[in-house]
Amino acid sequence: MTDLPHCETLTLARQGHALLVTLNRPQARNAMSLQMVAELATVFTQINADDSIRAVVLRGSEGHFCAGGDIKDMAGARSQPAGDGEQDPFYRLNRAFGHMIQQVNESAKVVIAVLEGAVMGGGFGLACVSDVAIAGPSVRFGLPETSLGVIPAQIAPFVVERIGLTQTRRLALLGLRIDGEEAIRLGLVHQLCADETALNAAITEALDRVRHCAPAATANTKQLLHRVGKEPMHSLLDDAAEQFAAAVRGSEGAEGTMAFMQKRPPAWAETGPDDQH
Amino acid sequence: MTDLPHCETLTLARQGHALLVTLNRPQARNAMSLQMVAELATVFTQINADDSIRAVVLRGSEGHFCAGGDIKDMAGARSQPAGDGEQDPFYRLNRAFGHMIQQVNESAKVVIAVLEGAVMGGGFGLACVSDVAIAGPSVRFGLPETSLGVIPAQIAPFVVERIGLTQTRRLALLGLRIDGEEAIRLGLVHQLCADETALNAAITEALDRVRHCAPAATANTKQLLHRVGKEPMHSLLDDAAEQFAAAVRGSEGAEGTMAFMQKRPPAWAETGPDDQH
Amino acid sequence: MTDLPHCETLTLARQGHALLVTLNRPQARNAMSLQMVAELATVFTQINADDSIRAVVLRGSEGHFCAGGDIKDMAGARSQPAGDGEQDPFYRLNRAFGHMIQQVNESAKVVIAVLEGAVMGGGFGLACVSDVAIAGPSVRFGLPETSLGVIPAQIAPFVVERIGLTQTRRLALLGLRIDGEEAIRLGLVHQLCADETALNAAITEALDRVRHCAPAATANTKQLLHRVGKEPMHSLLDDAAEQFAAAVRGSEGAEGTMAFMQKRPPAWAETGPDDQH
Repeated sequence: MTDLPHCETLTLARQGHALLVTLNRPQARNAMSLQMVAELATVFTQINADDSIRAVVLRGSEGHFCAGGDIKDMAGARSQPAGDGEQDPFYRLNRAFGHMIQQVNESAKVVIAVLEGAVMGGGFGLACVSDVAIAGPSVRFGLPETSLGVIPAQIAPFVVERIGLTQTRRLALLGLRIDGEEAIRLGLVHQLCADETALNAAITEALDRVRHCAPAATANTKQLLHRVGKEPMHSLLDDAAEQFAAAVRGSEGAEGTMAFMQKRPPAWAETGPDDQH
Repeated sequence: MTDLPHCETLTLARQGHALLVTLNRPQARNAMSLQMVAELATVFTQINADDSIRAVVLRGSEGHFCAGGDIKDMAGARSQPAGDGEQDPFYRLNRAFGHMIQQVNESAKVVIAVLEGAVMGGGFGLACVSDVAIAGPSVRFGLPETSLGVIPAQIAPFVVERIGLTQTRRLALLGLRIDGEEAIRLGLVHQLCADETALNAAITEALDRVRHCAPAATANTKQLLHRVGKEPMHSLLDDAAEQFAAAVRGSEGAEGTMAFMQKRPPAWAETGPDDQH
Repeated sequence: MTDLPHCETLTLARQGHALLVTLNRPQARNAMSLQMVAELATVFTQINADDSIRAVVLRGSEGHFCAGGDIKDMAGARSQPAGDGEQDPFYRLNRAFGHMIQQVNESAKVVIAVLEGAVMGGGFGLACVSDVAIAGPSVRFGLPETSLGVIPAQIAPFVVERIGLTQTRRLALLGLRIDGEEAIRLGLVHQLCADETALNAAITEALDRVRHCAPAATANTKQLLHRVGKEPMHSLLDDAAEQFAAAVRGSEGAEGTMAFMQKRPPAWAETGPDDQH
């Protein structure tokens, strides 16, 4: 079990097989600062090899997920010159965010986003790389970049991957805001909950489902899904069949088969002390 | 008109311009055995050049479509060694299924899947390669693989192609089951019917639409659709325009134009004796 | 401000920052003639460098958007030989349409399609390349090509890009027609309006949103969206970050930031005399 890093913009808590990560800059509606980007990247790097963590729950403090990029960082970058041979500080600021959400997108863990209040700009992008997206009634999504004279550079590509080109064109080009009902229709979120109780029940249920699925099989499946459409189907299926054979012959496959025949839950579904409710 | 092959796991019946294929292992909820995979592959190979067949209706016997892979085949493969230089029997088992659904996916015929009861694992994959998916009220889709310690290796890629990465992540990583209402919302099926009567009416209507569309034009259109996103749009459209010119100047284009001007149905829409109801 | 070209099949009108383009062959339900294709291509070429135009509203005259390809052009092409070394006139006819909708697809302007009555064949294809699609209650979409013995050669690829392979298979292979409710469900259109008043209000609202978004940022965002999935994500994000830095340091980024801090609308959102209502 890894020691978790010390963070200033995030609060971290273990809950059984899950890590709860709270974006914690409530005074700025959890706007994504450079430091928050760095701390999220550190957390996701550190837990990658930690078998005790199988899911990450991403949530914002005090009723907002994340209001977008941080204004102070932007002002700070503006005061720096574009540099001689150096990378433009705006380039570095923007690209660092993109590297982080690519990392979250491809994390071996199941990423559950809990979306409430403002989910804007960079927050919208982060929501788009989750495996499971659960929204509360206050949720509002928006891509305000073009109305501020800039572009949703690291965000729009993940929105296209999430909800398709058709819907992204309208949202991004008109700088629109949408509510939870529309987000469900667009397939941006998977579940819309009417209140806090339903939201917490949905999180618990998702974590329970993660517990019943074999950890390595889950991570390998996620990696497989990300490859679809990026390489020829034929060779992808060849490779997937090899992974299948290895999985069946491996310890998870043996335990899964045995548990199925013995009509008992597999070892990986056992409830640890922290999972008790 | 081709002779249809003798099958043990399928029942085959001609109905006018359609071939009705029933997965027929009701004692196993039509689980996909190695033999069923081989027989489906044979059927689809054999009818490919048979102009009298323009649509295939895939349905399961006794209220279930297909409950997934067959347990006995899995046990059989486990008893065989991974081999010296030989392919692992699990690899062959898994990959054979993938080859078959690729073949169904790319079949020149219009494939209509009738989905009832269990549509699990391999059955889910098979549903995803249909051109028209009509579901009954009892339908339940599921990807239980990761909960058994294995991966949906040959299936998940076709689920991603069918319903997109966003929805597949949740379904595959949580090993979820969904009903017909959710399947409609995800675009997994096209029509959800309230009862057997409505289901049969929907099948008849789809077959009627197939009859009104020119066979070669239909096959060429299907092939064209499969190429989108896999090659540059510009050269795809160049090639499509050449196909268009050939179609207009060909016998179907001539008959279609003439029938349109003479306000009569084209020859290919004529009702044969088996299409009478 | 560019002079607009003289057109015979289109009527053109400026309205503030928008160009209203009306397909104007009502006797043929605005069927797409070779001349209309050429005139649309000319218009889109000409306005591309005109900064005074930021949006294009495409609409059909007298209650229909566009009923598809023009029968007379088809008859004309048939009377010409396939040629010696020359391109088949059917090839040229078809491909010219495809070039035009590719051009509309990639236009730097925000393209708003107003969809009423018949949206068939080529009209369906044109609808699929809009950034914002607003439909009226009379709208009917259809892909009748295969029922006429030909293929939706230049159209089907854009339908796949718009609504995905799953839904396109059914629509194109069965030659189906669908109404506005189904078009919304498939994500083919963004808004379905109950009557003319609601339709005009939706157009006004979309144009108002365009006015609030910076012109160059909007054009650059649109170009970025079109690249997603066609090149590796990593290099796309690198390039996007460079564009972001340039946008922030450019005149739009400076004005947007200043306006935001001064709590005033940015210069590009100012209402010109033609935008008054």
